[in-house]
Amino acid sequence: MTDSIIDLRSDTVTRPTPAMLDAMFQARVGDDVYEEDPTVRALEEETAARFGLEAGLFCPSGTMTNQIAIKAHTEPLSEVICEQTSHIYLWEVGGIAFHSGASVALLPGERGRLTAAQVEAAIRPVNVHYPTTSLISLENTHNRGGGSCYELTELEAIAEVSQRHRIPLHLDGARIFNALVATGQQATEYGRLFDTISVCLSKGLGAPVGSVLLGSQAFIQKTKRIRKVMGGGMRQAGYLAAAGLYALEHNVERLRDDHRRARQLGTSLQAQPYVAEVLPVETNLVIFRLRPDMPAEKFLAYLEQEGIRASSFGPQMIRFVTHLDIDDTMLQRVESVLRHLAS
Amino acid sequence: MTDSIIDLRSDTVTRPTPAMLDAMFQARVGDDVYEEDPTVRALEEETAARFGLEAGLFCPSGTMTNQIAIKAHTEPLSEVICEQTSHIYLWEVGGIAFHSGASVALLPGERGRLTAAQVEAAIRPVNVHYPTTSLISLENTHNRGGGSCYELTELEAIAEVSQRHRIPLHLDGARIFNALVATGQQATEYGRLFDTISVCLSKGLGAPVGSVLLGSQAFIQKTKRIRKVMGGGMRQAGYLAAAGLYALEHNVERLRDDHRRARQLGTSLQAQPYVAEVLPVETNLVIFRLRPDMPAEKFLAYLEQEGIRASSFGPQMIRFVTHLDIDDTMLQRVESVLRHLAS
Amino acid sequence: MTDSIIDLRSDTVTRPTPAMLDAMFQARVGDDVYEEDPTVRALEEETAARFGLEAGLFCPSGTMTNQIAIKAHTEPLSEVICEQTSHIYLWEVGGIAFHSGASVALLPGERGRLTAAQVEAAIRPVNVHYPTTSLISLENTHNRGGGSCYELTELEAIAEVSQRHRIPLHLDGARIFNALVATGQQATEYGRLFDTISVCLSKGLGAPVGSVLLGSQAFIQKTKRIRKVMGGGMRQAGYLAAAGLYALEHNVERLRDDHRRARQLGTSLQAQPYVAEVLPVETNLVIFRLRPDMPAEKFLAYLEQEGIRASSFGPQMIRFVTHLDIDDTMLQRVESVLRHLAS
Amino acid sequence: MTDSIIDLRSDTVTRPTPAMLDAMFQARVGDDVYEEDPTVRALEEETAARFGLEAGLFCPSGTMTNQIAIKAHTEPLSEVICEQTSHIYLWEVGGIAFHSGASVALLPGERGRLTAAQVEAAIRPVNVHYPTTSLISLENTHNRGGGSCYELTELEAIAEVSQRHRIPLHLDGARIFNALVATGQQATEYGRLFDTISVCLSKGLGAPVGSVLLGSQAFIQKTKRIRKVMGGGMRQAGYLAAAGLYALEHNVERLRDDHRRARQLGTSLQAQPYVAEVLPVETNLVIFRLRPDMPAEKFLAYLEQEGIRASSFGPQMIRFVTHLDIDDTMLQRVESVLRHLAS
Repeated sequence: MTDSIIDLRSDTVTRPTPAMLDAMFQARVGDDVYEEDPTVRALEEETAARFGLEAGLFCPSGTMTNQIAIKAHTEPLSEVICEQTSHIYLWEVGGIAFHSGASVALLPGERGRLTAAQVEAAIRPVNVHYPTTSLISLENTHNRGGGSCYELTELEAIAEVSQRHRIPLHLDGARIFNALVATGQQATEYGRLFDTISVCLSKGLGAPVGSVLLGSQAFIQKTKRIRKVMGGGMRQAGYLAAAGLYALEHNVERLRDDHRRARQLGTSLQAQPYVAEVLPVETNLVIFRLRPDMPAEKFLAYLEQEGIRASSFGPQMIRFVTHLDIDDTMLQRVESVLRHLAS
Repeated sequence: MTDSIIDLRSDTVTRPTPAMLDAMFQARVGDDVYEEDPTVRALEEETAARFGLEAGLFCPSGTMTNQIAIKAHTEPLSEVICEQTSHIYLWEVGGIAFHSGASVALLPGERGRLTAAQVEAAIRPVNVHYPTTSLISLENTHNRGGGSCYELTELEAIAEVSQRHRIPLHLDGARIFNALVATGQQATEYGRLFDTISVCLSKGLGAPVGSVLLGSQAFIQKTKRIRKVMGGGMRQAGYLAAAGLYALEHNVERLRDDHRRARQLGTSLQAQPYVAEVLPVETNLVIFRLRPDMPAEKFLAYLEQEGIRASSFGPQMIRFVTHLDIDDTMLQRVESVLRHLAS
Repeated sequence: MTDSIIDLRSDTVTRPTPAMLDAMFQARVGDDVYEEDPTVRALEEETAARFGLEAGLFCPSGTMTNQIAIKAHTEPLSEVICEQTSHIYLWEVGGIAFHSGASVALLPGERGRLTAAQVEAAIRPVNVHYPTTSLISLENTHNRGGGSCYELTELEAIAEVSQRHRIPLHLDGARIFNALVATGQQATEYGRLFDTISVCLSKGLGAPVGSVLLGSQAFIQKTKRIRKVMGGGMRQAGYLAAAGLYALEHNVERLRDDHRRARQLGTSLQAQPYVAEVLPVETNLVIFRLRPDMPAEKFLAYLEQEGIRASSFGPQMIRFVTHLDIDDTMLQRVESVLRHLAS
Repeated sequence: MTDSIIDLRSDTVTRPTPAMLDAMFQARVGDDVYEEDPTVRALEEETAARFGLEAGLFCPSGTMTNQIAIKAHTEPLSEVICEQTSHIYLWEVGGIAFHSGASVALLPGERGRLTAAQVEAAIRPVNVHYPTTSLISLENTHNRGGGSCYELTELEAIAEVSQRHRIPLHLDGARIFNALVATGQQATEYGRLFDTISVCLSKGLGAPVGSVLLGSQAFIQKTKRIRKVMGGGMRQAGYLAAAGLYALEHNVERLRDDHRRARQLGTSLQAQPYVAEVLPVETNLVIFRLRPDMPAEKFLAYLEQEGIRASSFGPQMIRFVTHLDIDDTMLQRVESVLRHLAS
């Protein structure tokens, strides 16, 4: 892969800026299995503080923070309520069953977003034939829903269901900062509503590796053995954590630029004759459906030939993602290529 | 529970007739863990022969035969395609995740019945984020679908998908004899299309305990260790198997009577003002929805008071099941009670 | 297998006597999944009462009662302390790992019997690298130890460790009645020391199928979903339970005869030149080691030819088991064959 | 933790040298989930090449490489043969049961080393009561055995057993380079004998984070989904991989210095009156037992007060580890403190 490629496949492909690299290079480190890496600790504390939760656990991936949370909240013979296209169900290799021996109640959301009524109706009654409902998990922004954002009122209603039934509520916050920036919601409101939050640093925030799982002190203490058995106990991980700290400080507000560029891409796509539908663009994801006369493989091959990469996202569905390594010049180039394809 | 009760909750509640009891206590038995019980062996062979499959495994329940089949067909990090209201997903305590560490692809069927196109679309492509599709499981008749029966052509089309993708096909045949009797399909057609079949003896057939899992010799050999670890290795189980053999010989054709009575119940229910909808009655299950002004709890309590038992089957949904212990006199009594409630 | 065979392989091979069969035949039954089988309930209550525990759960095998108990006591990432040749580890298909995701701390016992000091030393300290110790499981009599019996004082010392560390204590009582009869200990002493007990009905007691798991009301309530997912929910299981009730009433005291015959066999074996060692005979198991010049296969083949069956029990090790279907005439025949082999 | 501390707890505590750090921050990186990180790829290929195996998989820890290998080699209801104090059993949180649902056959080694005869005797025969033996796993050097090294002839004999029984052979090579340097054995001999090898970069080699799992192309391909579900799919992981590449080039031969210092420590310890026994020092681990009159807590507290850290390793057992951050001056300081304690 050369640098001249415009990579719209995901916001995970970003590479650290020189300033972020410099922060990494300067990091003080220690053996984090002995809980002695000061930079990892600082990242865990800073992330927790932002969301108003007590403690954090740094992990090599968002899949790990999600799967650890699910494992810690559930037990075998229980069930997780989640949206039917949520990342934890669709793209984590069936990890809910694999790690936790837990069943799933898969609900159809409106662009990935569930309602409190849906969630409550999915709670299993007590019956020897049923697993027990042990967790409600939401995703915000919702990837498969096109980067859609929850309204705070709906989250509050779902949290109320969670509390009334004493079923914990987890947030897959792979792109939570995109949601915060797009809606103006406060991070601390999430810490108030959710028992645990998985915060990813290596998507829009631009860090190379890592996610932080947030929760109460007792919960995070419990997760350490789970991280260990999953192989997530790293030694001098402070180099990675330093990038996360840098990203929290410098790369949150700039997500607005990604969102503006995504909206611009959405508008361009809607104008193309080969595009059947573009999902509403709320953040940095642009999901659209091609008309039948433009096969997805052909479309992607054409882009590839023009140095542009995008993701197939189901039959005739394509996803574009804007991020730190996509600037306005690249955007114009993409728009030009899209227009040219129509001509 | 006194014998004067009319129990429409399930066809599992039947008690052996004197003739069946007599067959049980004449049984020759041995230690089946050593594979030395001649009656168990005879039942396994007879059931397999009826469906044209090679071998059988006697188990204490249909949940065990289903869960053993799923375990033997799958491995962790794989996924089972099934209908979203199928028994294996809904009523087996999340066993797919628990025993097999496997994920589920839950499809919405038409009264529980899937199409070949749906099944094929649900097969996961090769991708490091995905489990691999390892099993397609159907249920016929489909309990939650109201005892609905598959057309043979659709089964053939699904079997074709299964074979083309080399993904095994399992049948939860908890009420397969009801389907055979209702449609005139042949058991051997099922043995030709399905890799494995779970056949229940303690529902419509009236045996007290047991199911038989059918498959190839190699498959059944493999399942013996799974039955053992699940605790299904029984010693002198021939007493139970004898009831199954008796049921196969004497209680299949009489399912027509159950179906006739179920249709009659369905017709009666449709005439009642408090009934909003009755699912089409194809076999021995009658599922209906009460109008909002007749709360399900009140309806069931009224029946209970009249000595009639039925099952709640979701909000405002009720299930009646006809079986060996329900005769025409009882039927008339039920119809009279239903009419009286309307007056 | 013809009836003329003298089957010393196991006490599981017994077939019901006419009186036991008659008790089975008379049983009142119901659908036990709905908890409506009066005979199953009577058996569960009677067994619990004998041991002074609150509740019981009838299951199709002792493997199921053991594995359910282990599952209910433990959670994944925990560890079970047991003897290295215990049935739950050695002969239950690795079920501790399979069902419970739990690790094992395998201790070397003196003929299968652990000491309180051994158990306490095996409790894992708190450490992110370690599973947590969640269960201590003993077996009495100990099969691989040659039917050896625990002293009550040692059981009390182990129970004290269990209580002090708040780690539950389970008993695999596959042959607990043999231990009671041999030592004169009281069943209620076991109920006082153990949190849960698995009691087998189909070994020395002579019932065809079944075991009962005993524990507190809350514990047994919890196990019902586990039995269901394992496929142990049976319908009209009262026929089997009736045999168990009969066995509890009629077949306990007569275990003394089995023990006397086992001792007699042990004495005979010690006199044979081809026998290197006979484990002390405490109950109904006789385990002995053949000298190198008498290959085990040859020995077993010789017995088989004389109509006598026995079990291979490791290299050059053989097990004889006395039981309800072995009488003094058969014993004399076995002794005669053993002597003849030496000549 | 300040830098003046002499940390003998583990060789995992090392921090990168300036030259290693420089190599890290020069690394070319990409998104390794898309398999596009050139430095990760280079590390995987270089490590595989050294051992003469086809392919490698970079992971955040040695626990992950071991557990992935075990998962990929085994299936539920199977059993892993390993030494009773091996890292995979003792210090990986019961991961064999947790991830793989596999049982363990725990053998007593001579300072952690098994013989081919022991391994062969532990293979389970075919029996419905037994799991199937699916993996033999060795550890070299063996941590709990005091850094002991296998003779090549014994490894060859064990590999012969593995091949004859078609049971794969895995090496936990957390400290394999210590074994190679100490014995003069060749890395490629290991690639010839073992199906898979876990090679750790963050112990004696001094890299901050990471291990590489080695095996055939087909095996490594299979492991990618397992790494993904465990959360080990990292994005721009090349920064970590670059340290590993540097370590392979620069830090292998210098392990001789660690071994020399460890031997010197061993000699010093043997001269102390409060030391009961020192395990033979073969590599960089020094394990010793204190006399009863020198409680381990007191000994460790005394060292701590003198700025020296060591690990408790069981009752009265202590472990010292030499590594990249321990030089001769520090060594002299430790020896002086040890002598002073005796006076």
